[in-house]
Amino acid sequence: MMRRVLIVGTGLIGGSIGLALRAAGFEGEIIGTGPTVETLKIAQERGAIDRWRDRPGAESMASECDVIVLAGPVLSILDWMEKLSGICDERTLITDVGSTKLQISEMAAKLYNQPGKARFLPGHPMAGKESGGAALAEAALFERAMWLFTPTAGATQTALEGEWREWVAKFGARMMDLDPARHDEICAWVSHLPQMLSTALAALLEETFGSDPRSRDEIAAIGGRALRETTRLGASPYSMWRDIALSNTEPIAATLHALEQRLAHVRENLRTPELKEEFRLANEFRARRD
Amino acid sequence: MMRRVLIVGTGLIGGSIGLALRAAGFEGEIIGTGPTVETLKIAQERGAIDRWRDRPGAESMASECDVIVLAGPVLSILDWMEKLSGICDERTLITDVGSTKLQISEMAAKLYNQPGKARFLPGHPMAGKESGGAALAEAALFERAMWLFTPTAGATQTALEGEWREWVAKFGARMMDLDPARHDEICAWVSHLPQMLSTALAALLEETFGSDPRSRDEIAAIGGRALRETTRLGASPYSMWRDIALSNTEPIAATLHALEQRLAHVRENLRTPELKEEFRLANEFRARRD
Repeated sequence: MMRRVLIVGTGLIGGSIGLALRAAGFEGEIIGTGPTVETLKIAQERGAIDRWRDRPGAESMASECDVIVLAGPVLSILDWMEKLSGICDERTLITDVGSTKLQISEMAAKLYNQPGKARFLPGHPMAGKESGGAALAEAALFERAMWLFTPTAGATQTALEGEWREWVAKFGARMMDLDPARHDEICAWVSHLPQMLSTALAALLEETFGSDPRSRDEIAAIGGRALRETTRLGASPYSMWRDIALSNTEPIAATLHALEQRLAHVRENLRTPELKEEFRLANEFRARRD
Repeated sequence: MMRRVLIVGTGLIGGSIGLALRAAGFEGEIIGTGPTVETLKIAQERGAIDRWRDRPGAESMASECDVIVLAGPVLSILDWMEKLSGICDERTLITDVGSTKLQISEMAAKLYNQPGKARFLPGHPMAGKESGGAALAEAALFERAMWLFTPTAGATQTALEGEWREWVAKFGARMMDLDPARHDEICAWVSHLPQMLSTALAALLEETFGSDPRSRDEIAAIGGRALRETTRLGASPYSMWRDIALSNTEPIAATLHALEQRLAHVRENLRTPELKEEFRLANEFRARRD
């Protein structure tokens, strides 16, 4: 039975999990911890957590929590995983919300999910906003969102894991279990590549036109929805993406390389019938999604 | 005084110009022509034109029209420009809506805008939808849109040109005059590059995952707003883009090549502090637009 939850990192995702638990009827205790007191205070004021502890305090009471949600960036999740593996036992379920899953899942298989060890369920809610922070957290953030899990192969589901999945269902999220390497590959294609692409395009425009006020004005006046949509993700902060780039380097590099080659192919065929075939393939991709 | 208008090509843009003229209070006659009778009939039923003529009929009465709007693709505009230069005289204003302007403006300087010749004002309303056709035409299409002109250098504005600009203002559009080569360069950056990028990404995804139902389902289930926005333009039909690729090849190729290099730069720096600088530049670009 889940009675006490510890949320590590009470920003946009962690804070929204606290609010979603309350909105879904969770009546137990929600404790927060994280590196920034300011963030913890905002999360408490907003009702996402009942109270908060600093890191040493949180570590010392981790074994008394039923569920621990690691909701920081990937490298901080890995750091907490190492620490908590010596503190928690099989009575605790630890889960996370990290954007990449291979490294986390490998550590979960190594340090958890064994006799006498806590259960670790790697998770990844595909939800967010362009900016982060506890102030933007909301109970409805996960409604209709996809919440992916990459459970350790062969580990049987515990009652607490079943209960956590029920809460996620009550948040309104859809769920899917995936192999961790497959997760990272698919997310490289559908999330990390669009981000890097948008960042690269916006950075290129900034470097090409940013220092010339006349060009800047022309770009601003003439650019419409096409430019807005393809550069929107350029507003994402580096702090949110550093750990993703570090923990999923190979799959992201592979998708970037494939796109570079594809753009060269389009460039070399602007005046040939091959451009028609490229539009046909793109039309087919979109037709299945509209 | 503009009393009779001929719209050549009554699809989405040409049809919307007819509807916008009526909505703005134009009481003269609007005649349509174009390669497809079906399109002309829809435009007439929708009230975008009063009547229509086939091409020989339209050519034979072109000299009796005050304003002729060439609203087909770029290559068809160039074709009509050649034909009409031997038919119309200085009493007529011809304008167009072509997406690229250098070739059209060069032909305008050569065949028009001289004593005894009709006046030609190259234009480009930056408005559209993902699909074309007279059925989607609407009077409000140009509201708040940018309508660019690339007038021949040194040609003084005629009364009829002034009147046409007044109608465009009544459509709710903003207007800007640009040098034609500059127009094509800016449009390559803000419109043609986003299109080719989106087409290339959607085509790449289709070729990589399209033939495997399981992968297709995973991409569909996991892909969110980031994927949707960066591939949305992939739905654009080749027929709308063929002439743009043919008439603006060099500027589009230059922007594609620059983006290829930028993506390689990001790929090579996924684990270095240079990625932070790339995000900073992209953040700056977006900050000015939000």
